[in-house]
Amino acid sequence: MTFEEARAAFPVLDRYAYLNAGSVGPMARQTYDAIVEVERDELGPRGGHEAFDRIMDLRERLRGVIGAQIGVAADHVSLTTSTSEACRVVVAGLDLGPDDEIVTTDAEHFGLLGPVHASGARVRVAGVRQRPAVEAVGAILGEVGPRTRLIALSHVLWINGHVIPLEELEEAVSVPLLVDGAQSVGAISVDAGPFDFYTVSGQKWLCGPTPTGGLYVRNPEALRVGSPSYFSQRTYEADGSFEPRDGARRFDRSWIPAAFIAGLEAAIGVAPDWRFERSREITEHCRERLLEAGHEVVTEPEHSNLVSWRWESNTMEIAKKLGEEGVIIRDLPGTGLLRASCGYWTNEDDIDRLVAGLAGLRRVS
Amino acid sequence: MTFEEARAAFPVLDRYAYLNAGSVGPMARQTYDAIVEVERDELGPRGGHEAFDRIMDLRERLRGVIGAQIGVAADHVSLTTSTSEACRVVVAGLDLGPDDEIVTTDAEHFGLLGPVHASGARVRVAGVRQRPAVEAVGAILGEVGPRTRLIALSHVLWINGHVIPLEELEEAVSVPLLVDGAQSVGAISVDAGPFDFYTVSGQKWLCGPTPTGGLYVRNPEALRVGSPSYFSQRTYEADGSFEPRDGARRFDRSWIPAAFIAGLEAAIGVAPDWRFERSREITEHCRERLLEAGHEVVTEPEHSNLVSWRWESNTMEIAKKLGEEGVIIRDLPGTGLLRASCGYWTNEDDIDRLVAGLAGLRRVS
Repeated sequence: MTFEEARAAFPVLDRYAYLNAGSVGPMARQTYDAIVEVERDELGPRGGHEAFDRIMDLRERLRGVIGAQIGVAADHVSLTTSTSEACRVVVAGLDLGPDDEIVTTDAEHFGLLGPVHASGARVRVAGVRQRPAVEAVGAILGEVGPRTRLIALSHVLWINGHVIPLEELEEAVSVPLLVDGAQSVGAISVDAGPFDFYTVSGQKWLCGPTPTGGLYVRNPEALRVGSPSYFSQRTYEADGSFEPRDGARRFDRSWIPAAFIAGLEAAIGVAPDWRFERSREITEHCRERLLEAGHEVVTEPEHSNLVSWRWESNTMEIAKKLGEEGVIIRDLPGTGLLRASCGYWTNEDDIDRLVAGLAGLRRVS
Repeated sequence: MTFEEARAAFPVLDRYAYLNAGSVGPMARQTYDAIVEVERDELGPRGGHEAFDRIMDLRERLRGVIGAQIGVAADHVSLTTSTSEACRVVVAGLDLGPDDEIVTTDAEHFGLLGPVHASGARVRVAGVRQRPAVEAVGAILGEVGPRTRLIALSHVLWINGHVIPLEELEEAVSVPLLVDGAQSVGAISVDAGPFDFYTVSGQKWLCGPTPTGGLYVRNPEALRVGSPSYFSQRTYEADGSFEPRDGARRFDRSWIPAAFIAGLEAAIGVAPDWRFERSREITEHCRERLLEAGHEVVTEPEHSNLVSWRWESNTMEIAKKLGEEGVIIRDLPGTGLLRASCGYWTNEDDIDRLVAGLAGLRRVS
């Protein structure tokens, strides 16, 4: 597949410099077509054994498809609809209390932070945002103590795109790691196998329907099913006690529409083999162009697909104005930062439009 | 709208005697069209302020639409994707422990029972399934004691369609009621206002996309946000502590696709004013026809839209065989019962096909 062929799959790129896969990826025409085609089955007898058995088979297949994206077996993949849901599953199963501690960072999304806070454990926040990337692991380890029951953090920080060297962290500690893969899966090569818990977002860098996703659980039998759903059980008693299903499927909470399963599979199917190399190149190009234009880029070189830079005035206003000009980026509330997401589909012209748009707005403001 | 016009909205009824809205309702052509049309927007710039603001507006509108189905204000409606999710929200906020008790019945779906069991509270099960409907409230009250913190039960029992007289129960106790509305909302007239918590399923009797739904919370400020999502907070701190959004929206956990919001609104829009009267009539007709045919019907007259009857042999096998003949009903595992769901769209011919199909299978078995 050539670059032009790969790019042509996304209708949004005809008109927009769409630089916001970190929020939600562009959708390919094939993905939409798969959704529409499979949703049509809902006009048939959508309740009944045949329909239910079909969706259960599709769920099993999707487990394998998601697992393949992070190098793990289907049996260890639970299907989720968001990273928040995945975090809730983990936290609910650990039964934490006020004597326990969770270590996290100051560069996490509320989708992770919210469930971490609500767990009732004490939350210790490692300051990584203002530090050079190389100091991140040290800062995190500095918060780990004898009461630490979980380290919950992103693989790639949504604030600045820095990649946390998880292997280094994993080697240094014995507590479980809950890794938020929202900004990594589909953006950089991921091997989730060594970690205890790893979340996958289907609608961001995998460009699937919203909402889709998964949770890798290294040892499903060791985590309590803290909040079961119909999908969790094989059999149950009148008081709700139950025998869980095998593997990570016991943590499934949500019905994923067959149309969205087909959509996510189609989305993953259109991604070319060279996706990671190309996105790395164009991200570096974006970073350099912003630096050349005099922006204060806070993202260090050689990380992931996100580039963030400071903006002196109201960042939300700037993101909205750029949006009106067809350049879609993300403002990061409370940070003074703007963020561009560069995928394998991004071209030099998209970056030119971003730089030109910022130049125009800088003159105005 | 005439009966024939209302029925013609559902393509599945052209070929099937579709009698399983208790699992998932038939989908109207208009509902599918709305889904496909709105999902097409995903091909545009689906991340960015304009898209996000639009979905937040749609969510507010949907709160009102769901609230109108159960006679409550939008501000008290949280958007959910299943009754299980709604039950998890309630149970997570009550912070129950082993010294607390939850009273439920022996005729509940695992979607309610699972979260109830996982709460850690002791579960007391009132036997209502084998009793005449008039004795249900007494049986439930018999399990209520000084440690009861919650009564969690269905408005309409999925096993036999009996309607629990909730007002009578509400008057007799002061503990909160969590009502599973899966088999009531869209099937019978509901006024949820007097109850503490009431769940709504969008894909059953409201015939919306799967999954959609809601949770009514009478006093949102009195329930802890036990498992927050990005939608729960107005602002948050680095440790995840947060200021919740107003009203029941603080309990929102899931992204509802704009296409499914449009789909549920379209589905509700096609339902005629006379839906409850008509479904009551045809359900009674179904019940009488089954009795005439010699079946042991366990559903008493004058309840809801479900009719259940005993079957001497393997019920799953019978449901599958009927399905092959185009008659879609539900077998109820572990009960020896078969169940037919009669909606306002059901006609006499559908019931004839059911009765004839059962007669044919009885001769064979």
